[in-house]
Amino acid sequence: MKEVALGIDIGGTFTKFGFIERNGEAIYDSSVTTTGHKNIASYQKALAEEIKNSFSRFQDDYKLVGVGIGAPNGNYYKGTIEFAPNLDWKDVVPFVDMFKEHFDLPMALTNDANAAAIGEMIYGSAVGMKNFVIITLGTGLGSGIVVNGEVVYGHDGFAGEVGHVQVYENGRMCGCGHRGCFETYASASGLRRTVFELLCSETTNTKLRNVNFNDMTAKMIADAAKDGDQIAIEAFNITAKILGMKLADTVAHTSPEAIFLFGGLTNAGDMLFIPTRESFEENLLKVYKNKIKIVPSGLQETNAAVLGASALAWKELEK
Amino acid sequence: MKEVALGIDIGGTFTKFGFIERNGEAIYDSSVTTTGHKNIASYQKALAEEIKNSFSRFQDDYKLVGVGIGAPNGNYYKGTIEFAPNLDWKDVVPFVDMFKEHFDLPMALTNDANAAAIGEMIYGSAVGMKNFVIITLGTGLGSGIVVNGEVVYGHDGFAGEVGHVQVYENGRMCGCGHRGCFETYASASGLRRTVFELLCSETTNTKLRNVNFNDMTAKMIADAAKDGDQIAIEAFNITAKILGMKLADTVAHTSPEAIFLFGGLTNAGDMLFIPTRESFEENLLKVYKNKIKIVPSGLQETNAAVLGASALAWKELEK
Repeated sequence: MKEVALGIDIGGTFTKFGFIERNGEAIYDSSVTTTGHKNIASYQKALAEEIKNSFSRFQDDYKLVGVGIGAPNGNYYKGTIEFAPNLDWKDVVPFVDMFKEHFDLPMALTNDANAAAIGEMIYGSAVGMKNFVIITLGTGLGSGIVVNGEVVYGHDGFAGEVGHVQVYENGRMCGCGHRGCFETYASASGLRRTVFELLCSETTNTKLRNVNFNDMTAKMIADAAKDGDQIAIEAFNITAKILGMKLADTVAHTSPEAIFLFGGLTNAGDMLFIPTRESFEENLLKVYKNKIKIVPSGLQETNAAVLGASALAWKELEK
Repeated sequence: MKEVALGIDIGGTFTKFGFIERNGEAIYDSSVTTTGHKNIASYQKALAEEIKNSFSRFQDDYKLVGVGIGAPNGNYYKGTIEFAPNLDWKDVVPFVDMFKEHFDLPMALTNDANAAAIGEMIYGSAVGMKNFVIITLGTGLGSGIVVNGEVVYGHDGFAGEVGHVQVYENGRMCGCGHRGCFETYASASGLRRTVFELLCSETTNTKLRNVNFNDMTAKMIADAAKDGDQIAIEAFNITAKILGMKLADTVAHTSPEAIFLFGGLTNAGDMLFIPTRESFEENLLKVYKNKIKIVPSGLQETNAAVLGASALAWKELEK
């Protein structure tokens, strides 16, 4: 009988799950809605039923050995979800304690960037690495930091919020309430803000002047840059410059072997990676120069969050 | 027979050493010059002889069980001192391998800020803490980061160079060759630079206008501030503001339980700590607010470096 771990990724709209073998092979994945449930208990019941129904067709061949959960503001130590701004359940939800009523299995929970770090370590490009960082570049900037082969959770379970280090005092307003945070520059939304800054400061002709703020996507900007659009190219260069600059500061904390970049923005490829590496090297302290890789994540984006969550389960089982 | 560890602190001018019991009690300390030796081998020979002579008077009552060494640019993994700018020996010195010819004992080496972190953990105010940071505020700013009860050495042995994160792009010139580094603002020399900035920008009367740049010390500025000197007070406020601001960024990496401040600048007491804590809380991400202490180190400054080095020896013995 083969073993699989259950990976669950809780997003603001959908909760995805999958059954994943130790080698990263997904035997099944599906989802339920996160919203529209009466309360957390009824949401967990609906999710558990869907999982159990799905698993019933595999139960002759596979054994479910553990559960890993990725959730915004997930606290690894307590198994809680705390004050997640994009979820219906406010305050502190004892997610793992409650969900154990449905699955009497080893169960662990962390935030999505930490789950991605473990995914990278178990199935991705960080297999065998003891010290690395993963940066997820989506709407915001998430981070998972690995030291001595373990994700850094810190004293309270909330370590690894590199998206909120300060780049510029009194800089761009961030969702967290501060100004100048890293993620207001280095993320899909940061790239868009940089384009709009350039539309103001420059007179260069660009078709991006015909797109309103809400409609403009990172993909649109990447496509324009590939077509030679100077504003789009410059926006990528500025984004990469700041990304490299602040990743150098992260190195000054934990001196990793590699930094993995993950998420939609990395689809821009060389346009992002080349200037990022250049700025990174320029800003590194001498002792770190020319020895730290900045490379794409080895996880496929389509199911990375579920993979990461399931990797957390495998990681716990191997402890 | 009681046990003692040998702690050695290698400075640019003097090499201090001491025999320290597990409880932090120093039974003896002394020093030799670091400079003026023909080569590293003759320096080590002189140091070893002085240590052996000193220890001879204790050998009936004490057993030497291990050696810990704190050195600038010390590499914990390799036991090397690499490209230390203030030492006579350039390039990579295999310090531990060579010194084992004199003492056939467990031996470990790291940089002084990491040694201070271990000192804090073994003898100081971090006993029992698993996640904390120590910041040494001297001429520069050193840092030791502890995660899960272990100093973070990183992939290459050089983690924890928080003094070189960037505060301001194109800011003050740093000894490392970059501009805007944290230690050019938050350190004894940074405080002095801030005073001189204020002497330019303000017209406020202050006796600090009668002191030249090279003669001005942090103690002079602290004494002036205690006497109500407005420029000195403002210089402390600016220093503390930047210190708090960037320590909040460090928290976003490893989420420690406490940050210990160590070194001459901390003698200013409340004048430094109160505005630092204020700026720190203001800049922390919400999830970290009101739960992280910024407190003075529990190590006495007079022999902290030797204590820290000896603590490294004890820490290794307990592994």
